[in-house]
Amino acid sequence: MNEIKIFSPATVANVACGFDVLGFCLDSVGDEMVIRKTDKKGIHITKIENFNLPFEAELNVAGVSALAMYNAIDVDFGFEIEIYKNIKPGSGIGSSAASAVGSVFGMNELLGKPFNKTQLTEFAIKGEALASKCEHADNLAPALFGGFTLVKSISPLQILEIPSPNDLYATIIHPQIEIKTSESRAILPKVVALSKAIEQWANLGSLVHALHTSNYELISNSLNDVIVEPYRSQLIPYFNDVKKAVLKAGALGCGISGSGPSIFSLNKGLETANKVKDAMQNVYSKTGITFDIHVSKINTQGVKIID
Amino acid sequence: MNEIKIFSPATVANVACGFDVLGFCLDSVGDEMVIRKTDKKGIHITKIENFNLPFEAELNVAGVSALAMYNAIDVDFGFEIEIYKNIKPGSGIGSSAASAVGSVFGMNELLGKPFNKTQLTEFAIKGEALASKCEHADNLAPALFGGFTLVKSISPLQILEIPSPNDLYATIIHPQIEIKTSESRAILPKVVALSKAIEQWANLGSLVHALHTSNYELISNSLNDVIVEPYRSQLIPYFNDVKKAVLKAGALGCGISGSGPSIFSLNKGLETANKVKDAMQNVYSKTGITFDIHVSKINTQGVKIID
Repeated sequence: MNEIKIFSPATVANVACGFDVLGFCLDSVGDEMVIRKTDKKGIHITKIENFNLPFEAELNVAGVSALAMYNAIDVDFGFEIEIYKNIKPGSGIGSSAASAVGSVFGMNELLGKPFNKTQLTEFAIKGEALASKCEHADNLAPALFGGFTLVKSISPLQILEIPSPNDLYATIIHPQIEIKTSESRAILPKVVALSKAIEQWANLGSLVHALHTSNYELISNSLNDVIVEPYRSQLIPYFNDVKKAVLKAGALGCGISGSGPSIFSLNKGLETANKVKDAMQNVYSKTGITFDIHVSKINTQGVKIID
Repeated sequence: MNEIKIFSPATVANVACGFDVLGFCLDSVGDEMVIRKTDKKGIHITKIENFNLPFEAELNVAGVSALAMYNAIDVDFGFEIEIYKNIKPGSGIGSSAASAVGSVFGMNELLGKPFNKTQLTEFAIKGEALASKCEHADNLAPALFGGFTLVKSISPLQILEIPSPNDLYATIIHPQIEIKTSESRAILPKVVALSKAIEQWANLGSLVHALHTSNYELISNSLNDVIVEPYRSQLIPYFNDVKKAVLKAGALGCGISGSGPSIFSLNKGLETANKVKDAMQNVYSKTGITFDIHVSKINTQGVKIID
């Protein structure tokens, strides 16, 4: 096999009470990439569609993660990468993670899978760091492993795969505004009340248990972020209106996807997920802000080969 | 049935990263109580062995929880309570919770079980509040439900039963010193660094997952309290020496039981639990402080009828 086409999914990180640790993988949104062995050594990005991103490997997220893997192997050939980018950079649903994951996953397949998924995450972290200026795996882990993942720690890298019920769907709205990473970081509190921290970890412990036991009611009760959302939601226009509307439409819960501006909801069943889509649309169609909405089953597979 | 004898177990609350929410139930340590229907209306404590505790129902933890239930029912008889107290008050392994739970569990049995365990916890909270001056269910929940419990919230009361692996044993040392509740509260930080809070909830999410999946290594990796232990351990002499020794002896993890002074460890298998007992003994036998040590399988049943 000299060439492979892959689908690298969008992901939701910072899932409510699981700020900085819990993420999940989407099914219907993602990038496509072609990875090809070439005689020419090194990593060569030969095509980028839809968005204006750098072709120099060391300046491109997919290129940097590819180089991290390439430098760890000893081969007499190189790789070409074509990127068909569908996830808008800056949307808050893991655009850079999809790129970082896609190249290393594809190369690993062409090499006969010498690396496991945790090792692939280590390479992809280098690419992600180019985009987000810090090493984190919040979006990489669900993109690589699929389903819900809990990143217990970065050093050493420990990723836990949390099972989730079958009938769980996400609805996500991406309001097309820009939130600067610096701003979304600066607004985070440095210290939090112990009582609020306890509430947050009670909710996260409960959410992990609820996912294990397919308890939708408990998932709903646990999907609360009492620490970060009160701050970051200020940066997303109409966040509270959307939240009110989607809960009224039957969503299990709702929160900021990544560091925003996207807003995710989790829902039991496709029918509710579509009702929630309508509710989100109703709120935002009155605002003059353009937006995308995605409805997606939880993708339990993660990045995959297509064609 | 007019009379019942019950075993009400000791419990460990504040399990490391699960501060204020996670507890577990012990097997080999607990109080015995006899509950008896009598013609004389009301709650009457007729015997207390081993410790000097008040006989007036409204001044006794077991009496207050019993009265809370008694006031919620309409019967033309009363209850006598005999308390054979084996758990030392102030030891940090749920002495007051065992009393509060025992009376309501026994009465409920004699009444034909009109109340479920969550309702029993609501009554027992009233008794516990007499001892600890605040309404909490950290020890009550494991004493009533058995196994590991996560108290998601007090109002409304939500208790989750977390499964745990079969071969899990606790070793607990109770150094016989007094820590004043006021002191152990005053030493708690009011605010914590967001980064530490994130580490704590990553650990708790991970611990819940590890318990669900019987992953001993992950239980071990997750049993860390980066928020409260650094403060409260200062009140327990030789805490760090005990911790070092038990981890060296093979314990999965170690922490403060409740608000101390007891120190608990969790262990895979009885053999390791006994080695950990020796290690604890080695440390404390040199200190001149008297102590008790308990080795116990995790009690998955909780409070129960005996005889």
